Amino acid sequence: MRIHVQNPADETVFPITEQQWQAAIARSPDMADLEVSFASDDEGFTRAMAEAEAIVTWTRVAHQRFPKGALPGLAPKLKLIFCTSAGLDKLAPFDFLPPGVALLNNRGTHAAKAGEFGIMALLMLANHIPAFAHDAREGRWAPRFGSVLAGRTVCIVGLGSLGGGVAARAKQFGMKVIGVRNSAAPHESCDEVVAQADIDRVLPRAEFLVLACPLTPQTQGLLDRRRLSLLPQGAKVVNIGRGPLWDQEAVCDLLESGHLGGAVTDVTVPEPLPADSRLWRTPGLFITPHMSSDDPGTYNDRSLDIFFDNLRAWRKGEALPTQVTAERGY
Amino acid sequence: MRIHVQNPADETVFPITEQQWQAAIARSPDMADLEVSFASDDEGFTRAMAEAEAIVTWTRVAHQRFPKGALPGLAPKLKLIFCTSAGLDKLAPFDFLPPGVALLNNRGTHAAKAGEFGIMALLMLANHIPAFAHDAREGRWAPRFGSVLAGRTVCIVGLGSLGGGVAARAKQFGMKVIGVRNSAAPHESCDEVVAQADIDRVLPRAEFLVLACPLTPQTQGLLDRRRLSLLPQGAKVVNIGRGPLWDQEAVCDLLESGHLGGAVTDVTVPEPLPADSRLWRTPGLFITPHMSSDDPGTYNDRSLDIFFDNLRAWRKGEALPTQVTAERGY
Repeated sequence: MRIHVQNPADETVFPITEQQWQAAIARSPDMADLEVSFASDDEGFTRAMAEAEAIVTWTRVAHQRFPKGALPGLAPKLKLIFCTSAGLDKLAPFDFLPPGVALLNNRGTHAAKAGEFGIMALLMLANHIPAFAHDAREGRWAPRFGSVLAGRTVCIVGLGSLGGGVAARAKQFGMKVIGVRNSAAPHESCDEVVAQADIDRVLPRAEFLVLACPLTPQTQGLLDRRRLSLLPQGAKVVNIGRGPLWDQEAVCDLLESGHLGGAVTDVTVPEPLPADSRLWRTPGLFITPHMSSDDPGTYNDRSLDIFFDNLRAWRKGEALPTQVTAERGY
Repeated sequence: MRIHVQNPADETVFPITEQQWQAAIARSPDMADLEVSFASDDEGFTRAMAEAEAIVTWTRVAHQRFPKGALPGLAPKLKLIFCTSAGLDKLAPFDFLPPGVALLNNRGTHAAKAGEFGIMALLMLANHIPAFAHDAREGRWAPRFGSVLAGRTVCIVGLGSLGGGVAARAKQFGMKVIGVRNSAAPHESCDEVVAQADIDRVLPRAEFLVLACPLTPQTQGLLDRRRLSLLPQGAKVVNIGRGPLWDQEAVCDLLESGHLGGAVTDVTVPEPLPADSRLWRTPGLFITPHMSSDDPGTYNDRSLDIFFDNLRAWRKGEALPTQVTAERGY
């Protein structure tokens, strides 16, 4: 089977190397018969696409190189597109996909890193770190004290790889964990799970809230101004999902009014955030530049293992573990 | 037995209240026969000291009200001085203590909070949070990626309540934990323990280092410029002990040169840190204003429980669990 790996031309931190590929093959000896090619340029891409049955690439590469209607002519033998991201919202509404070509993401890759980032963000909020970061700009030593996380309530929206990772850590720190997802099905790290349609019912109890769900038409603007106002006075919020999941302006307003007690966000609208954005100056808001869930030390290894899990299922004619469908949007 | 609680006149966050005392008595019914008085003023203090057998107070109150030679005349019946701090370095060399009066600290109070702060600081360093805090001052969106803590090496200096709390969390996150303390005796959360005299031997392996020991003549300046330079390139350091444990200027120099990859400190010299201090402007350095280990939600409850543990031992003529001796300095 012919696989092509197309790295972006400008990628320096996360390109998939031949060495990483060989190491992944060593972990999955049943994949040793794969024929693989690598490229980061146009010529290598075009040549490989004529024969490739699967491509491993970036969401932004797929977005750029697979316009609607192009795939049948460009890559007549293609069966699988594996993107090394969990959130493929940039590819919606997925109408570039011909019948018979499956789109796969790398969900599962991010759980350990996202769990650590999530619990760090909760601890930072409990310890007033965003306020101290602002105090430091003016050289102001102004003690405030924080309490331990044990016994406090966190609401985690999205229980996939990211949210599940955060929920596991929150549970380990003794928090009461309320999960929100499509259905109210129980989750091992949650004391309680409610369906997204019932989120208004749990927001008034959420001392902490974490957004960790995919961006889809159903979740866009989920945490709007009204819902943010349902959170209790002094609530602290984290976003490791996507910027459009919440009303970013309302978050700033409610931090300024004191209704929200602090925020850590790894995602903004737009990205990169311009230097003159209000977000940089909002007290109580700490911004990280979209790095929460990506660990260069393990990212490609885990992604390739997940790709091989999909290939294994595909060879057996089973359901593909990380297939993204247009209906769900993730 | 007569106990006096002297709160500082200016204390607003942590005064010990009669309600907290009664709750502590309810947890320790064998202490119900104690006679207790409360004051925050001079008159209440002087009146109570004439009869009190034990005082529960602040280190700074003891420092101010118990000058050398004063105690026998001021408090002729006093047997126990319980200070609601773990670090009593301000009272050194302890020559105000007459024979027969025991000085007690509240060590043990801080473990849960210090453990959470410590692991937060390690996660903040792994995730480049100090750098992002500096980037935010200029509205600069500059992604850098971080790796999970699992498998990385942390050296924790001091394995008492603070350091032990951090070690337990570091172990939980899968780190390799090297402890440093007076002796090389094993510790349940450490993979390896070395005596302080051998610290030079382990510093070159310390990707992360946490200072969490008491300040004594033996530990003052422990992490001097030479020892900081023994740390590997890019090492990340945390100080939740006392500012004079390390050479603060050397820390700034080594952050600027890039030898150190980041620092989080809860303690500075002096405190409060003046607005024009170089520390506020050093890239890669994140300052919290001496709040790492104090949880207002649990602090006095735990301190009073520890005081009662001491009283219980004293009544039985046993060794006092948290006695501070002039020889050790903690």
